[in-house]
Amino acid sequence: MQQAIDIVTIDTRGQGLYEFTRAVRRFVDASGITTGLLTAYVRHTSCSLLIQENADDGVKVDLDGFFARLVPEGMTWLVHTAEGPDDMPAHIKAALTQTSIGIPVADGSPVFGTWQGLYLFEHRRRPHRREVVLNIIGEH
Amino acid sequence: MQQAIDIVTIDTRGQGLYEFTRAVRRFVDASGITTGLLTAYVRHTSCSLLIQENADDGVKVDLDGFFARLVPEGMTWLVHTAEGPDDMPAHIKAALTQTSIGIPVADGSPVFGTWQGLYLFEHRRRPHRREVVLNIIGEH
Amino acid sequence: MQQAIDIVTIDTRGQGLYEFTRAVRRFVDASGITTGLLTAYVRHTSCSLLIQENADDGVKVDLDGFFARLVPEGMTWLVHTAEGPDDMPAHIKAALTQTSIGIPVADGSPVFGTWQGLYLFEHRRRPHRREVVLNIIGEH
Repeated sequence: MQQAIDIVTIDTRGQGLYEFTRAVRRFVDASGITTGLLTAYVRHTSCSLLIQENADDGVKVDLDGFFARLVPEGMTWLVHTAEGPDDMPAHIKAALTQTSIGIPVADGSPVFGTWQGLYLFEHRRRPHRREVVLNIIGEH
Repeated sequence: MQQAIDIVTIDTRGQGLYEFTRAVRRFVDASGITTGLLTAYVRHTSCSLLIQENADDGVKVDLDGFFARLVPEGMTWLVHTAEGPDDMPAHIKAALTQTSIGIPVADGSPVFGTWQGLYLFEHRRRPHRREVVLNIIGEH
Repeated sequence: MQQAIDIVTIDTRGQGLYEFTRAVRRFVDASGITTGLLTAYVRHTSCSLLIQENADDGVKVDLDGFFARLVPEGMTWLVHTAEGPDDMPAHIKAALTQTSIGIPVADGSPVFGTWQGLYLFEHRRRPHRREVVLNIIGEH
């Protein structure tokens, strides 16, 4: 059994979904592992990870639109407001999605379905540099 | 350290929770692994995975009812509507739950609590054939 | 490749977030594993796991406040009500967050970001004894 670990850096320019499926495939290829478990983990609490459809950009627009409506800025009962009106909604959106996703690997590739892509879901308005740690454990 | 990988196929007949705890236990048994990590991963973006109570069917009914109210069909601002009125709500429900769940294995069994069962959460109305990939890494 | 498994017990005294980052770090230290994958798994369906900011307690207050508003007690359409008014909302909140979180380990520590802490999110009002299973797979 072997393993590899690396960091993918994603520069975000506002709220929305940023696909990094290709970076993940490259990491798996470079590891030489053909069967095993890949884990993606985001080191932040105001963005998150999501596996979603990568065929129609409308899906990304609507996901973003739904979360903006479910967790709007300006909820007057919030107490954590010092870091700006988009900060606490960002933490809540992160809590509603995922910080970590495990994906089995078979025949040298993550077992994504036909339409699945892996995204960083940015919840802050300003540009941020985000770090996603990738780990793979398995066999060559 | 050993591993095994397999696919469980689940035929769904409309929205709701479909338990597949038994198939997972059989997979762990067949692997011969007694201590380790099991991962279940669904290869779709309009259904998801959930660990929930398997004692009272009312829990399943209410989970389904809550998500139907939180993400109703007919939200007029949606742009991804070409695949039917239940499609984009399905993607949103999948984003709010999980695509992947990791479960430690001890003494030859997943460490489920007394009342826990593992479910596929189908978000589409029509019948679908769904694939869940199971991976286990550990020791005999 | 090595592994270790253990259970952390957390006594909760009502709804809210209970940090157990330190117990996780101690488990990783004791395992002697320096690179690998840590998994935390909660054996219950009315509490859940969350990675969130541990710098400002206001974040915890607001997370709790948001979920209490999103999933209020007293929804009249619920059918699973025999275990008390906070029980079915607890299952729904658990479904909206996570039962299991995987965290890569590097240089002998989980790769938490600067502000990240690992929490048990208790959704029941009365005191409960909660079990979180920790598994780590990796190399010394």
